[in-house]
Amino acid sequence: MEKTEGEIIRAKLDSDQSQSQISHLALDIGGSLIKLVYFSKNNGSSDDDDGNNKHLVLQGRLHFAKFETCKINDCIEFIRSKKLHLGGVRLHDAPASDKILVKATGGGAYKFADLIKEKLGIIVEKEDEMDCLVAGANFLLKAVHQEAFTYMDGQKEFVHIDINDLYPYLLVNIGSGVSMIKVDGDGKFERISGTSVGGGTFWGLGRLLTKCKSFDELLELSREGNNRVIDMLVGDIYGGVDYSKIGLLSTAIASSFGKAISDNKELEDYKPEDVARSLLRLISNNIGQIAYLNALQFGLKRIFFAGFFIRGHAYTMDTISVGVHFWSKGEAKAMFLRHEGFLGSLGAFMSYDKHGLDDLSTHQLVQRFPVSGTNAGEKICCPLVGDLNDNDSIECGVYAA
Amino acid sequence: MEKTEGEIIRAKLDSDQSQSQISHLALDIGGSLIKLVYFSKNNGSSDDDDGNNKHLVLQGRLHFAKFETCKINDCIEFIRSKKLHLGGVRLHDAPASDKILVKATGGGAYKFADLIKEKLGIIVEKEDEMDCLVAGANFLLKAVHQEAFTYMDGQKEFVHIDINDLYPYLLVNIGSGVSMIKVDGDGKFERISGTSVGGGTFWGLGRLLTKCKSFDELLELSREGNNRVIDMLVGDIYGGVDYSKIGLLSTAIASSFGKAISDNKELEDYKPEDVARSLLRLISNNIGQIAYLNALQFGLKRIFFAGFFIRGHAYTMDTISVGVHFWSKGEAKAMFLRHEGFLGSLGAFMSYDKHGLDDLSTHQLVQRFPVSGTNAGEKICCPLVGDLNDNDSIECGVYAA
Repeated sequence: MEKTEGEIIRAKLDSDQSQSQISHLALDIGGSLIKLVYFSKNNGSSDDDDGNNKHLVLQGRLHFAKFETCKINDCIEFIRSKKLHLGGVRLHDAPASDKILVKATGGGAYKFADLIKEKLGIIVEKEDEMDCLVAGANFLLKAVHQEAFTYMDGQKEFVHIDINDLYPYLLVNIGSGVSMIKVDGDGKFERISGTSVGGGTFWGLGRLLTKCKSFDELLELSREGNNRVIDMLVGDIYGGVDYSKIGLLSTAIASSFGKAISDNKELEDYKPEDVARSLLRLISNNIGQIAYLNALQFGLKRIFFAGFFIRGHAYTMDTISVGVHFWSKGEAKAMFLRHEGFLGSLGAFMSYDKHGLDDLSTHQLVQRFPVSGTNAGEKICCPLVGDLNDNDSIECGVYAA
Repeated sequence: MEKTEGEIIRAKLDSDQSQSQISHLALDIGGSLIKLVYFSKNNGSSDDDDGNNKHLVLQGRLHFAKFETCKINDCIEFIRSKKLHLGGVRLHDAPASDKILVKATGGGAYKFADLIKEKLGIIVEKEDEMDCLVAGANFLLKAVHQEAFTYMDGQKEFVHIDINDLYPYLLVNIGSGVSMIKVDGDGKFERISGTSVGGGTFWGLGRLLTKCKSFDELLELSREGNNRVIDMLVGDIYGGVDYSKIGLLSTAIASSFGKAISDNKELEDYKPEDVARSLLRLISNNIGQIAYLNALQFGLKRIFFAGFFIRGHAYTMDTISVGVHFWSKGEAKAMFLRHEGFLGSLGAFMSYDKHGLDDLSTHQLVQRFPVSGTNAGEKICCPLVGDLNDNDSIECGVYAA
């Protein structure tokens, strides 16, 4: 791979002992959130041999962190304080630190490249957003045990993924907006649809309506709310009875926010909890419906929902699941991913592997422990769903040639 | 048709000279609006003979009116003052006026049946909502000249309807909520989908966000607005550039209301015009997308959008049209109906024909003038789109056996 035609940049993994604990920072800079992934070698663990001389195992942990995009300076400070940027890839012939490359994806990789260079002295190597989402999803589904699960009526159930029968599937990534991607294999995919009604809509409209100070506060608020106060139900129109001829129960929502047409109440008269709940229901249900319709069009039975909108929130997942179940008459199944918000950054992380940018050009990031089947010998950090809002990490290994 | 088995009610058209000017009131009582249709005989015009002795023509006008459902008492007063309720069907053996039947559809036909009986002394004969929508749409498409039109880039273009090649089509009725109905013929249809994000959502959320006092005021406001102030565009995320690899221009909306996530602005800091515009765009676009996905599933090339949400509003129609055009890559076409809001009430009106409730059991409501082709001889009242918010009427005839 060395000195291929047109290759300008040659690089080697930064193996400087002074920062050996951290390597491979990758960023996903979206419209609302910056997601970081970085790898740290375990303290006191030396490189391990897995019995095959061609492979060297770096034992360690993969760390996840996030920041609001509007607070990118906090993120830059975090990176600097932990010296994460020095864990990028150093250019071969670079004498100074300003020739370090760090992988980034999402629109912010374009928008903030100059700012990052100025503040951290590193070069942002842009990776395509859809490429990264798909690479991240495929990695999680294939390599991480108990990554995918269904959620229905408050019951979470892990899904056994047969890696020989994974494709095709529909990946629905709910960030500020929503992308729907038909995935046919590693690097084989098509963005078939999307909707602008996503996490940014929930948070943007929710802020305007409730004066909440954070996305998580808004989600928390929705937990206590009752959407029937604001949504117009079939029973509200039909005087309490079902519209049974077409299978609509009196409790079905006929019109989201439809009760708010009444002259009697202003915004201040509604409880923020109820407003938040109606909004969450509108958006989750709408995404579930559009996702299902797209899955149907391409004959996809498996739909994985990811992105930071979900936040492991029970009502969100329940609404999406019920929506997919209802519209598909039970034919299609909504599944969720434990590392839902980090697909893009994981994909960017893994892209160090590509383009001959790395001496460890054949390295692979894999979970060290059994991928499926028995739990025997499993030692991975298995964070509960919902915990990923905080900084989190997962034990793993980097296998290198 | 007389005295068929199980027939309890036999009726005759009320032909009492004292109220001969009005006949056949029908109501569609939805979650937000009550739509009325009634027929009045022309003053001075006597019954006409069309050259066929079996048919008698009542020349006159079909009138349209609407009220907010929450102001149903105003509607009842309107009916009483114009004696419209006496134009229902009188029961054969009824000595008193409390045996007059009036056709009604929509959920309010169930919810308000007792109130209407109490206030007007008439019996509400309930007709199925979907039956009526389809009957109304089929009537308008087949019998009314220049009923359907496309709307793109501010250009309205009437569509020639070939009544021999009308079916199948997708009817999207946007009331408080949205129903999507696959229509295969007269009385042959299936409600295949819908969404709770409809006119009630626009008006409900719009009221909460802008303090507008009426739906029409909110629509008017949106005319002046700029959605880019609040919507997060692709360019906002990508630093002004397109995400060209997947065909998203920098001006495409990535996240509806996504800019409102910013800490810097509260609701009061946004212009109500801009809020109204973003909301209208969100809802119109979403309906267009879901409609297209459903049309695709059933191979329907023609989609007719109706319901009072549209109000002949240019931006609404433009957004729906662009949405359908974009998602279908030009394959499917959005069309609109001039009498968009009155499908249900027209269907209820025509249902007097059914069930042997009427001595004029074979009467047909038809437009008196050429249905298609040349405009020669055309005398129908042809209201401009957008004028139907006011009381309106259309010249027509009732053919009777």
